[in-house]
Amino acid sequence: MSDTEPNHRRIDDFDVIAFDADDTLWKSEDHFQATEARFAELVDPYSPAGIDVLDALHAIERLDIASQGYGVKAFTISMVRAAIDMTDGAVPTEVIREIVELGAAMLVDPVHLLPHVPEVLDQVGRAKRIVLITKGDLVHQTRKVTTSGLEHHFSDIEIVLEKDPPIYAKLMERFGVVPERFCMVGNSVRSDVLPVLALGAHAVHIPYHLTWDLERVDDHDEDVVELASLAELPAWLGLS
Amino acid sequence: MSDTEPNHRRIDDFDVIAFDADDTLWKSEDHFQATEARFAELVDPYSPAGIDVLDALHAIERLDIASQGYGVKAFTISMVRAAIDMTDGAVPTEVIREIVELGAAMLVDPVHLLPHVPEVLDQVGRAKRIVLITKGDLVHQTRKVTTSGLEHHFSDIEIVLEKDPPIYAKLMERFGVVPERFCMVGNSVRSDVLPVLALGAHAVHIPYHLTWDLERVDDHDEDVVELASLAELPAWLGLS
Repeated sequence: MSDTEPNHRRIDDFDVIAFDADDTLWKSEDHFQATEARFAELVDPYSPAGIDVLDALHAIERLDIASQGYGVKAFTISMVRAAIDMTDGAVPTEVIREIVELGAAMLVDPVHLLPHVPEVLDQVGRAKRIVLITKGDLVHQTRKVTTSGLEHHFSDIEIVLEKDPPIYAKLMERFGVVPERFCMVGNSVRSDVLPVLALGAHAVHIPYHLTWDLERVDDHDEDVVELASLAELPAWLGLS
Repeated sequence: MSDTEPNHRRIDDFDVIAFDADDTLWKSEDHFQATEARFAELVDPYSPAGIDVLDALHAIERLDIASQGYGVKAFTISMVRAAIDMTDGAVPTEVIREIVELGAAMLVDPVHLLPHVPEVLDQVGRAKRIVLITKGDLVHQTRKVTTSGLEHHFSDIEIVLEKDPPIYAKLMERFGVVPERFCMVGNSVRSDVLPVLALGAHAVHIPYHLTWDLERVDDHDEDVVELASLAELPAWLGLS
């Protein structure tokens, strides 16, 4: 191990290792961005010149998120609203129909696992209790979990509204683990790392090549453990 | 107590009393039906003669529920799809916009508690651990719970995808209660009563004057305890 490797931990430092799901275990943002690209193709011809339709869509998503929450259904409703608003009603109903179908297709899209996921969960899960913590749409996340082939690895699967310190604190209490012995693994610094570190627990950041606009954090002072891929997690835990 | 009263239980027969939320603690179906009535007014002028727009909407809801799940966002998406499909695209985007707004308004509608709810929860909750079990949209149900003023009564608040025997069994395990000492209180025979009785647990049915089409059960063989209102629950439990 070189000096440049992140501070290693031993698996026995922890009682529970928690994993995020979207863009940590399986692809998610790819499909959102492909849908957005199609949305732009569909709506652009009816929009006033000079409007960036994706900027306008993101602005409406930001407005809607407080009441609609995260996930594909909220995204679908934001797309419909954005298409009508930014074209001042000029978008044809045929396009609205296709937008609704794009959202419906996302809900039933098969899960695309990221590389090494089953092996890593098997290896870590044999050594320690592992749980899954994801936010988003209850029906969609449940479908992905149950069709992923990964469900049996996890002692608990928690689908939460928001990943903030109060929710993580409640989950740790539910798992019966103190923060010092809890480690969260995920692709989002904003959702998987900072709120966990704020509680005195541990986190490992595994970046994904795409990050949703609303998950970006511009700046923070934390010294974050970062691994290039989930395949590096067992070694970080001293398992291989 | 007369012979015609339902078989009474004592509060000490139970370790956990669980409550449904929508149309048990607060109004829900009223707003859905009001929105449907407005949907019919909006879409009917563009529909072919002889189509019952609400029947058509319900048919699309039934189709969508497997992938979209329960709740206001799923309902909103079904309304948009139904409006376009049943008018063969003739519905104006202005109407689609209003349909989306109707759904958005439902998500932020203030909670309307049913009569006697705070007093009954206070009385039962002082005597025994009470929990809330509701299905539907994570963000919407969470908003209703946190704005209802009722949250502090419950040791646990569980928002689930479906109310079926496996989910109830998992929840009882989480609460650490055996079925014989668990009692569910709710307005839906299909969701709050039958799956609970199937596990050997107890249930109390408190009908609401409106029942969602998809919650109706035509026939069952169970002998169901039914109370006319939540106000009767403390007496049924021997608390007053």
